[in-house]
Amino acid sequence: MKKLFNDKDRIVEDMIDGFVSAFPRIVTRGANPRVVRRTEPKPRDSKVALLIGNGSGHEPIAMGYVGEGLLDANVVGDVFAAPSPDLILEGIEEVTGEAGAVLLISRHEGDVINGNAAAMMAEDDGLKVRPLLMYDDISSAPKEQEDERRGAAGTLFIYKVLGDAAEKGMALDDLVSLGEDVRARIRTLGAALSPGVSPITGELMFTLPDDEVYIGMGVHGEPGVSRRKVEPVSELVSFMVEELLNDRPIEPGTPTVVLVNGSGGTTMMELLTVYGEVARNLSERTIPAISPMIGSYSTTQEMGGFSISLFTPTPDMLAHWQAPHRSPYFAHIQDGDGAGNG
Amino acid sequence: MKKLFNDKDRIVEDMIDGFVSAFPRIVTRGANPRVVRRTEPKPRDSKVALLIGNGSGHEPIAMGYVGEGLLDANVVGDVFAAPSPDLILEGIEEVTGEAGAVLLISRHEGDVINGNAAAMMAEDDGLKVRPLLMYDDISSAPKEQEDERRGAAGTLFIYKVLGDAAEKGMALDDLVSLGEDVRARIRTLGAALSPGVSPITGELMFTLPDDEVYIGMGVHGEPGVSRRKVEPVSELVSFMVEELLNDRPIEPGTPTVVLVNGSGGTTMMELLTVYGEVARNLSERTIPAISPMIGSYSTTQEMGGFSISLFTPTPDMLAHWQAPHRSPYFAHIQDGDGAGNG
Repeated sequence: MKKLFNDKDRIVEDMIDGFVSAFPRIVTRGANPRVVRRTEPKPRDSKVALLIGNGSGHEPIAMGYVGEGLLDANVVGDVFAAPSPDLILEGIEEVTGEAGAVLLISRHEGDVINGNAAAMMAEDDGLKVRPLLMYDDISSAPKEQEDERRGAAGTLFIYKVLGDAAEKGMALDDLVSLGEDVRARIRTLGAALSPGVSPITGELMFTLPDDEVYIGMGVHGEPGVSRRKVEPVSELVSFMVEELLNDRPIEPGTPTVVLVNGSGGTTMMELLTVYGEVARNLSERTIPAISPMIGSYSTTQEMGGFSISLFTPTPDMLAHWQAPHRSPYFAHIQDGDGAGNG
Repeated sequence: MKKLFNDKDRIVEDMIDGFVSAFPRIVTRGANPRVVRRTEPKPRDSKVALLIGNGSGHEPIAMGYVGEGLLDANVVGDVFAAPSPDLILEGIEEVTGEAGAVLLISRHEGDVINGNAAAMMAEDDGLKVRPLLMYDDISSAPKEQEDERRGAAGTLFIYKVLGDAAEKGMALDDLVSLGEDVRARIRTLGAALSPGVSPITGELMFTLPDDEVYIGMGVHGEPGVSRRKVEPVSELVSFMVEELLNDRPIEPGTPTVVLVNGSGGTTMMELLTVYGEVARNLSERTIPAISPMIGSYSTTQEMGGFSISLFTPTPDMLAHWQAPHRSPYFAHIQDGDGAGNG
């Protein structure tokens, strides 16, 4: 295992040490060292808290998105493992005041079980906590069973829209409704080209033939739904955009936010090329691509591959997406809106 | 070659297409499609232009740093190949007004020859253009021959400080002096763990044994200066920080900006861990680590590895480093200053 770690048992602690020491005005450790929360502004009773618990190994998601206009806290699990209900509860207690909290849960089995358990425990303690399941990966369950789909990179749209809305004072029930509405407007499909290496075992997380691409592989190496031979990226992206639009059609003229997310080991050259192909495919259907984000934000170690997420925001949602924010690694360029491009 | 491209001859064009279509309010193509320049504000005679020509394949550097408070233009060469003098001249002509231009040149042979030739041609055309050589890699030449060293990731400090100073109206000669002073305050040392794949040949760019790390390898796979067995990252980083401080000692109490740059295929988990170790090493010497940047900014495709850059700014330089900026991929968090850390 040629990775840059110390003691295998301290991988997550050492990473968090580096993170909070780098950005002390933005993020700090909670009472439990696995809780990363905002330094400023402090939690306040009038603001609904927004937090997520998730396994580590996918950085910068989610720790990197703690900050003003985004998350209040991230509860950091072991590598690729959901944090325990007790740990998530500690995170909830750390940031939740009278206005309550939304606990984001990316739909993977352990996250759902532990997140729901933590939310119930918090309710028992008298805190108002509403779990919000996030799912967007069209390959993981059929169209009629959307609520059985996995959470993938498109969940970032929910972080940002709810993060800004909560910052601006939206109430708990309204935030949950807004989150459900955003979720209904997001679809994601991924492609894997090469495996990442597990930081724990040092082994490749899966294998695939040199001339094949897996469509729909999950963020922990969950099986994909189909294989394709390596082909020019224009053909691969055309296929993927068509799958996304078959799952959720977008009317011509509907402004659409594109997220091209790299899995960790795919170069910026390639991600920009993928974005160009997505924009071209949308343009052919007279769908304007606006206000995109392109980079490696939700990763699976150094896995090669990418996902395409499409989001058709209402004007209010778009304003939340484009609003200023301040976290170490969320990288949406404020007002770098692709409005000319469509 | 399992990479996400179309026709091999259009790799760079397709990438630039994607990039400028994503961020049209920030970047646009010049008259020559290999010139990427700011959309707004337009070049103006009162502002010294700041630009660089470099080979592609290292994204997001340098294209990704075109924007307000940073570069006015980037002239994009073929993969790992300096742009021609004629092409650089077109870039200069595109953005240079009466105040003149600083042409940044990362010290690699082709870049130096072509950049200096372009600057001379521009002078012949009546434009005031001053080339500024950038070099920071301590492994590439001995201490007494600093001006024969290669440019590495630490050159990003020069982009940002000069970019902000130029935006605020600093005159040409003063910018060059400032750039030389910044350069004298930067040192970088890199370590390579695994090779990247050339987008052109599809071949690994070099090989190294499974249990070894190369110290000092260049950004195109230039030979390193030494090999080390894989060891805990704390030991590797301690060695590298000591090498950096041997080359240029830093007095206790001197605020030091740290850049941990990933080579492309190294995870954020690892880069944050490396930063933690750098900060610890500096702290042991009572050197405060402030205002860092941690991520994959100057890459060699999906090469595994990282570099550490140390920069001891004057208060004025630090203000330029921390000033607001707007480019698609420069990621220094404004006022996310690590001042508590040290």
